[in-house]
Amino acid sequence: MPTYKLVLEYDGTRYRGWQSQKNTDRTVAAVLERAVAELTEESGVRVHGAGRTDAGVHALAQVAHFRCRKRISPVALQYGLNDRLPPDVNVLSAEPAADDFHARHAAVARRYVYRLSKRRTAFEKPFVWWVRDRLDPAAMRAAAGFIPGRHDFASFCENPKGQESTIVVVASCDVEESPEKILVRIAASHFLWKMVRRIVGTLVEVGRGSFPPERVNQLLAEYSAEPARWTAPPSGLFLESVEYGEKPATVRGRRPSGGR
Amino acid sequence: MPTYKLVLEYDGTRYRGWQSQKNTDRTVAAVLERAVAELTEESGVRVHGAGRTDAGVHALAQVAHFRCRKRISPVALQYGLNDRLPPDVNVLSAEPAADDFHARHAAVARRYVYRLSKRRTAFEKPFVWWVRDRLDPAAMRAAAGFIPGRHDFASFCENPKGQESTIVVVASCDVEESPEKILVRIAASHFLWKMVRRIVGTLVEVGRGSFPPERVNQLLAEYSAEPARWTAPPSGLFLESVEYGEKPATVRGRRPSGGR
Repeated sequence: MPTYKLVLEYDGTRYRGWQSQKNTDRTVAAVLERAVAELTEESGVRVHGAGRTDAGVHALAQVAHFRCRKRISPVALQYGLNDRLPPDVNVLSAEPAADDFHARHAAVARRYVYRLSKRRTAFEKPFVWWVRDRLDPAAMRAAAGFIPGRHDFASFCENPKGQESTIVVVASCDVEESPEKILVRIAASHFLWKMVRRIVGTLVEVGRGSFPPERVNQLLAEYSAEPARWTAPPSGLFLESVEYGEKPATVRGRRPSGGR
Repeated sequence: MPTYKLVLEYDGTRYRGWQSQKNTDRTVAAVLERAVAELTEESGVRVHGAGRTDAGVHALAQVAHFRCRKRISPVALQYGLNDRLPPDVNVLSAEPAADDFHARHAAVARRYVYRLSKRRTAFEKPFVWWVRDRLDPAAMRAAAGFIPGRHDFASFCENPKGQESTIVVVASCDVEESPEKILVRIAASHFLWKMVRRIVGTLVEVGRGSFPPERVNQLLAEYSAEPARWTAPPSGLFLESVEYGEKPATVRGRRPSGGR
């Protein structure tokens, strides 16, 4: 059966997250599946996404795939879906993929960006976390420096015992400052539930001066429920990109560590 | 009585324009007047804006003033109003002004920017006009070149006979292109009702190739209702800035012309 790969952006404000759920059809996957069903006139087509974004979380370039019987040209697929999608979900590109392509399983890295606003803003409330307190980006950067590498992120995960493993390889965690914003960018092989929002929530506590940067290192070494109290709101979080291809041999800022 | 000058930004999507009206309280001035009344505990305070933006039109830096008996520090005024305003209206700064300052009468120039999107977008629908046809920015620029100067803009005005005068001095009209957008920036002493949106609507017809650039010059020389059919939607329009101080002696791109 033909397999199609989609790259899409969405404003997650009105949605209960990416993943189709039993009790609601207000998910991004569900509106996509309806558009695919209308366009292909095939029922029961499932759309799989690379990143299962939570309610209110946005995507600049989510990757998804689906299989159907119909053959459609990439342009007809992109335009046909967009004509059937609500204005806050937009297919950026569509292309045929290998028969066994799987958007989630084949992804080797995901990048997220979290946008903190230093000021109240009339236009961006759904797309930032406005932190009223003054933040210290240098302290946040110091704390972010502990994040890259292969660690047990149980402290930064909702329901860690429900996970198969809480070990994640983080490739990078950067704090960028501009006049009106602080951006936190994190890239990793995969992410645990609420992991980015808890890392950002903790970095904001560090930026406020109420949590020492070194304690972040400690949270990676031993389990603590502390960061659960500091979960950043979903509004500021964007899935920025998904990478495919070979698994990267090295983690940025670290030498390959052989054994682990 | 103390006079205060405010600079504010707003997302105009949910509002019936700036100006207070008899039949609705869903105007930006009305929500500001309510916030001022709550903060100052004075009733009947009127807020006057430099640009009377239409329903759905936004502002990046609208200027407004009001007079009240109470004396308030600029910071207390800004924060106090923002705490009482809905999230889509935001006071950027507040300061005491001269007793006779009038935001509208004292303004010597207004700048608007109109944002055309070349693509469908999940995040920006309320803040652009997405034109599906491919536009030719060079043709649009040629047509925009006729706009600056002192002209009768009756052809580009809603209800021209209801105006005291339809003569306007336009300082500049520029077309800028970026990978995803075309921006039209217009600065003038003042603007007639729907003038920017009809100029942009006409420039888009030119960009589509369905209206020759030279005809814009003709529309400035003689009255025609033609541009009324091409009124750009309010979503893409932003009041960008308001200038005070001396009236400019020259119009950009023109020598001072003495007589007129």
